[in-house]
Amino acid sequence: MSRKIVIGVMGPGDNASGADLLNAEKLGGLIARKQWTTLTGARQMGVMQAALKGAKQAGGETLGILPGKDINDAAEDADIVILTGMGSGRNIINVLSSDVVVACGMEAGTASEVSLAIKEKKPVILMTHNDAAKVFFKGLAPQLVSVADTPEETIAQIEKILLAKKDRSHV
Amino acid sequence: MSRKIVIGVMGPGDNASGADLLNAEKLGGLIARKQWTTLTGARQMGVMQAALKGAKQAGGETLGILPGKDINDAAEDADIVILTGMGSGRNIINVLSSDVVVACGMEAGTASEVSLAIKEKKPVILMTHNDAAKVFFKGLAPQLVSVADTPEETIAQIEKILLAKKDRSHV
Amino acid sequence: MSRKIVIGVMGPGDNASGADLLNAEKLGGLIARKQWTTLTGARQMGVMQAALKGAKQAGGETLGILPGKDINDAAEDADIVILTGMGSGRNIINVLSSDVVVACGMEAGTASEVSLAIKEKKPVILMTHNDAAKVFFKGLAPQLVSVADTPEETIAQIEKILLAKKDRSHV
Amino acid sequence: MSRKIVIGVMGPGDNASGADLLNAEKLGGLIARKQWTTLTGARQMGVMQAALKGAKQAGGETLGILPGKDINDAAEDADIVILTGMGSGRNIINVLSSDVVVACGMEAGTASEVSLAIKEKKPVILMTHNDAAKVFFKGLAPQLVSVADTPEETIAQIEKILLAKKDRSHV
Repeated sequence: MSRKIVIGVMGPGDNASGADLLNAEKLGGLIARKQWTTLTGARQMGVMQAALKGAKQAGGETLGILPGKDINDAAEDADIVILTGMGSGRNIINVLSSDVVVACGMEAGTASEVSLAIKEKKPVILMTHNDAAKVFFKGLAPQLVSVADTPEETIAQIEKILLAKKDRSHV
Repeated sequence: MSRKIVIGVMGPGDNASGADLLNAEKLGGLIARKQWTTLTGARQMGVMQAALKGAKQAGGETLGILPGKDINDAAEDADIVILTGMGSGRNIINVLSSDVVVACGMEAGTASEVSLAIKEKKPVILMTHNDAAKVFFKGLAPQLVSVADTPEETIAQIEKILLAKKDRSHV
Repeated sequence: MSRKIVIGVMGPGDNASGADLLNAEKLGGLIARKQWTTLTGARQMGVMQAALKGAKQAGGETLGILPGKDINDAAEDADIVILTGMGSGRNIINVLSSDVVVACGMEAGTASEVSLAIKEKKPVILMTHNDAAKVFFKGLAPQLVSVADTPEETIAQIEKILLAKKDRSHV
Repeated sequence: MSRKIVIGVMGPGDNASGADLLNAEKLGGLIARKQWTTLTGARQMGVMQAALKGAKQAGGETLGILPGKDINDAAEDADIVILTGMGSGRNIINVLSSDVVVACGMEAGTASEVSLAIKEKKPVILMTHNDAAKVFFKGLAPQLVSVADTPEETIAQIEKILLAKKDRSHV
């Protein structure tokens, strides 16, 4: 068995900023180069779309968990689409299925995924200009939440997290 | 038809503070006196249990949405228990089924419910000493999120919200 | 604590027969007279609507688990509406939240609820003219599935099931 | 975009017969040779495990939707594991994410997936010795449900279904 490492990239759909979109696309590409799978919420918009596009262009594997049940709503760059028909109820699945959760930007849906990740003891990396989010989530779970300014820094932190996890499982 | 108004009271389970518990129990009682139904996450602990207890002691109706599927895990004061077997996946149901969502205290699960409430355009009232939460969530959705210091103040804000909603539906 | 017994009445929405609708309404009324709560899938159509109407007219308590997230889609006679936004994903919740599951008529959604009830070891009563359903489901789980021809017979079987359950919990 | 076709193979976990297991493993292999992705319920037992094993051995891609949230419960041959934490609530996701649903054997969980597939208008192929299942489900939805005796016959029927689907989308 050689199960793939899955990195969940969460972020705004409708209201993603230009910086969020650039970060997401770059991050997807860097995840792909590490041979990790990129997971997003699968919609054909915002950070979800951009991260999958970046991953796909770099030859990576992509996975999307769709809120609806119509495959035509899925981002083109999702190799595999899971259809849930559960709306925002699918956010818990995004989180549980990721080894590390990255918030690329911040809005209410993203905040729910960061919160659920903490609840489920998943490591979270915040790449956002929303300083209040950093203060709040780091206050909730200082050991699970870290902050990164760039996609490259995010990748470095994911590597550190995965290494620590591997060390623990060898004890 | 005279459908009941449902007030969702969210808050910490294991790590509720003494103040959170007192607030939750008092709030449940005040909700009951308004003839509203109290909804919580149904577990026999923390804010979930305290709010249902307060509501029940004041003769109110109570409703719990359980993460598990064993009725024996449900708080005694829940008149009606919905068993989901969906773990934290049930948080979206807590939110969608409430007319107003009150956060009584703050931890990761509560944060996910506040976030999902904002995502679903539900009004939220924060009754917590976590100042970072207030800054963050009010920043995300200034028009949906308000802050209250006491159960009495929370009730006053719920009344204001319900009145505004009624006015809109009459237009 | 005096938790209510919940009887789930499942059945066709769009394609309910006249006999199904009459049976559902009568059954809801008989459930109410036993002081049990009637649970259905909450939609304003078919067996869901008829059972809630019968229960309400007999002064009973009613509970609906809605597939969508718009309260306006709920049957008028549902006292309490749980909004899931999960589509047919809510069928498992219908089943887990019921002490006994009654199929009043039969179509695909109903069949999924009967199947899930068996999977979760819930007692099921089939009140349907679909003989193939009776043969199939009784074959899957002879000890959980029984058959009734009328609402009165269904009530008699529910009483027997609840009595046996009570006896077991006293051992 | 070249999205993969996903074939869902459903069947007993604990109580799979020897014939079910042989059929599932062979079917997984044949699905792989067609370059389709094999989807199952991801558990390390029964038909779920056997179908993934057959697919993997033939060099295919595999996908599992786990009821729990512990990756260690997943079948070794699942390349990608979606963790839901929703128990049997994940059955709707199995169905929605598959282009065609195959029942390899029959028990309550499988019956729920066949029922949900019909509800969601997905084509279903029954490969089972349970004759009552065939009568019942074909009666429910003669146009969606077909029957096959062997893995080879199942593959032939999937091809026919996919061809008809392609024709319709070209109209």
